[in-house]
Amino acid sequence: MRVLAKDIAKIAQTGPGAAVAVSGWVHRIRDMGGITFVLLRDRSGLVQLVFNEKPVDASGTAITLESVIRVTGTAALNEKAPGGAEVQGETLECLSRAAPDLPFQVNGDISKMGLETILDHRILSVRNPKVRSIFNVQAVIIEAFCAYLRSRDFTEIKTSKLVWGGTEGGTELFEVEYFDRRVCLAQSPQFYKEAMVAAGMERVFEVAPAYRAEKHDTPRHLNEYVSMDVEMGFIESEKDLIDLERELLAHIFEAVARRNSAELALWKVPGPDPAAAEKAPVIGYEDAVKLASDMSAKTGGGRIFDINPEAERFLCEWSAGEYGSDLVFVNEFPRRYRPFYTFPSGANRTMSFDALFRGLEITTGGKRLHSYEAFVEALPRFGLKLENMQNYASLLQSGCPPHGGFAIGCERLTARILGLANVKEASLFPRDRRRVEP
Amino acid sequence: MRVLAKDIAKIAQTGPGAAVAVSGWVHRIRDMGGITFVLLRDRSGLVQLVFNEKPVDASGTAITLESVIRVTGTAALNEKAPGGAEVQGETLECLSRAAPDLPFQVNGDISKMGLETILDHRILSVRNPKVRSIFNVQAVIIEAFCAYLRSRDFTEIKTSKLVWGGTEGGTELFEVEYFDRRVCLAQSPQFYKEAMVAAGMERVFEVAPAYRAEKHDTPRHLNEYVSMDVEMGFIESEKDLIDLERELLAHIFEAVARRNSAELALWKVPGPDPAAAEKAPVIGYEDAVKLASDMSAKTGGGRIFDINPEAERFLCEWSAGEYGSDLVFVNEFPRRYRPFYTFPSGANRTMSFDALFRGLEITTGGKRLHSYEAFVEALPRFGLKLENMQNYASLLQSGCPPHGGFAIGCERLTARILGLANVKEASLFPRDRRRVEP
Repeated sequence: MRVLAKDIAKIAQTGPGAAVAVSGWVHRIRDMGGITFVLLRDRSGLVQLVFNEKPVDASGTAITLESVIRVTGTAALNEKAPGGAEVQGETLECLSRAAPDLPFQVNGDISKMGLETILDHRILSVRNPKVRSIFNVQAVIIEAFCAYLRSRDFTEIKTSKLVWGGTEGGTELFEVEYFDRRVCLAQSPQFYKEAMVAAGMERVFEVAPAYRAEKHDTPRHLNEYVSMDVEMGFIESEKDLIDLERELLAHIFEAVARRNSAELALWKVPGPDPAAAEKAPVIGYEDAVKLASDMSAKTGGGRIFDINPEAERFLCEWSAGEYGSDLVFVNEFPRRYRPFYTFPSGANRTMSFDALFRGLEITTGGKRLHSYEAFVEALPRFGLKLENMQNYASLLQSGCPPHGGFAIGCERLTARILGLANVKEASLFPRDRRRVEP
Repeated sequence: MRVLAKDIAKIAQTGPGAAVAVSGWVHRIRDMGGITFVLLRDRSGLVQLVFNEKPVDASGTAITLESVIRVTGTAALNEKAPGGAEVQGETLECLSRAAPDLPFQVNGDISKMGLETILDHRILSVRNPKVRSIFNVQAVIIEAFCAYLRSRDFTEIKTSKLVWGGTEGGTELFEVEYFDRRVCLAQSPQFYKEAMVAAGMERVFEVAPAYRAEKHDTPRHLNEYVSMDVEMGFIESEKDLIDLERELLAHIFEAVARRNSAELALWKVPGPDPAAAEKAPVIGYEDAVKLASDMSAKTGGGRIFDINPEAERFLCEWSAGEYGSDLVFVNEFPRRYRPFYTFPSGANRTMSFDALFRGLEITTGGKRLHSYEAFVEALPRFGLKLENMQNYASLLQSGCPPHGGFAIGCERLTARILGLANVKEASLFPRDRRRVEP
């Protein structure tokens, strides 16, 4: 019966000399002459194995780093061993021999490896405990996102990623050859989540891939990303959504801070603060641009005209200083910057918002149009024709409650929590203009 | 403050005459002369509203079926009302007026509507409580799937759906124009989940869309479906996977039986039985074909040469009769029917299996090759060339534990639990050769 690395110390304490079997990857080999130490890595962590003879496989060949082995032996306390215990090896079976010339050493310092190397060799790089830790945090984020929304009576939906056109306009779409026609990969589940609110579910969420055929390659963009989408009926304004996202992020932050303390320590970052999420300020778009511009001027920078990446950093700095929160919401975006379905506020503003977290936009959201008349009136302003918008038209003619929603970029949130330099580090198999493998 | 339909009876019991506000869709209108009854539907259910005057909107127009309204009034007990309580309406606000000529009546009998009508008008059809109930069950299935695997130390992963080629062979792939090259939509996360087991996660799962460009249109196929994937390291044989799937399905069945009793009652089907999942038999491929053929002969049918849809029904019938289980596993599939990465068993069989549930295959799985030498030897047998398989080659040369996994088709499992005639009914926005909208 296999025992995990993390349980060896407990077994050795309860009954030293207990027979155990461990399996995993050869993380490190230290040949001390008469005695050999092997650090074995499994999904739970590391454990030291001690061999009185040189460990070899069935053919008598010395085992290689990263080979998969199964070892039987006895558990023993040893305060010098990592975790305070070790396994005195008796039998060794090599389950899978790793090539001796792997592209890099898993047990090395990943800060010395380039991003392209890390992404080219995902099987090896994810074995590095620090790289692996990114995806432990991401799994907790997704789990906490779903759990919180379920607790608030949201229904999980799964919608098609093959659509007849974009909801945000016609550009930046990947085309798919679908039998004898062409369809597009969905940029977001926008229409579908609105449709399911109007279909009576009222509150829905979805975690699924989304696609943007953006040509530029920056540390904040992915051409395929995991979108964590929320849509809610019977809201008054975007402020209801901001309240929901505050509570949702507070729940996620609490889960990460509690369950991923080891991962946060590896990356030497403070845990995300649930209380800070709850007290995140809301600032109107015009005030936000002015504030960022003033802050830029004070540091000798140029004027800022928009919520660009520089402004996002200034606004988070301001929020941290004034409110003790690394999260800030910017609302009342001008209508010209938002899609046609955004609910207007006054003549030129909208009931929409962005959430900025630790210097990066992680969410766009807003209240949507729910009146057919307002929709028909808005279309010419966005260069859209009613005859091409029949799905939206039928949505709004079927009885559609006031509603709105938002989406959180899963990789962006992961990256900002851990302080990763590039959002691609938070995607197991990122896609950019040049990369479609592995 | 809005009150949900399901809470009106409780409020009326505690304090009759309490002021309430309700919001939702107009499900039914019954004009009794001096008095009008409106049945209001929200996400929680139905509640009766009583108006002493004809309910009209702000412009004095009579409200239409499926319009979204907000009504204030007082809660009152009435044993003749559905749920034993009603709301005496005082004010009415029409939040969204539904067109008076909707394509069909939401409150009607869906068994009289054709499948194409249901799928063409998803916003309306999902409002029908019986159609909606399908997706309540589906959400519970997905939640229970994830929860059980997390409890067994599996890590949730999210992998790319844009891949350089198919893992199951080159046919049945949709092509995507990806900047200046062509990539494919993933048929399954096969390579990625194996890669993450070998990357040290050992146990992973993913719930995500999968794509098959199959041209045939049957009640059991979707061109885009939700695949619930599992992969596990350090297994001995496919029997470990069958044991895992038995326990996983028992957990899902328990959750559905407990939480979806209302939905199961609407569809007049017995709840799926956790105990039956645990005692599901395993039968070898050759014995299964022979058994199905014999059963076919007894009912005057022809000989059966393969586990075809007819055989699946016979085998489930046999399992129900002999073992009291509507689930049966068929293992030891011939090598020629399985992909190259399947672990062989003897000369011509494999350590692979299907799970059949209530007459339909819901899972394919198996142990995978983990030896590079066996992989290189297997390739010619499948017409594959090593130079095109470098990702698999590097997987197996990096130190890869014995492993295997399976996938459950989410829509198929949903459809079989509820006894739906067509798997498309269990997809919110199904895609087939002709359908890409809505």
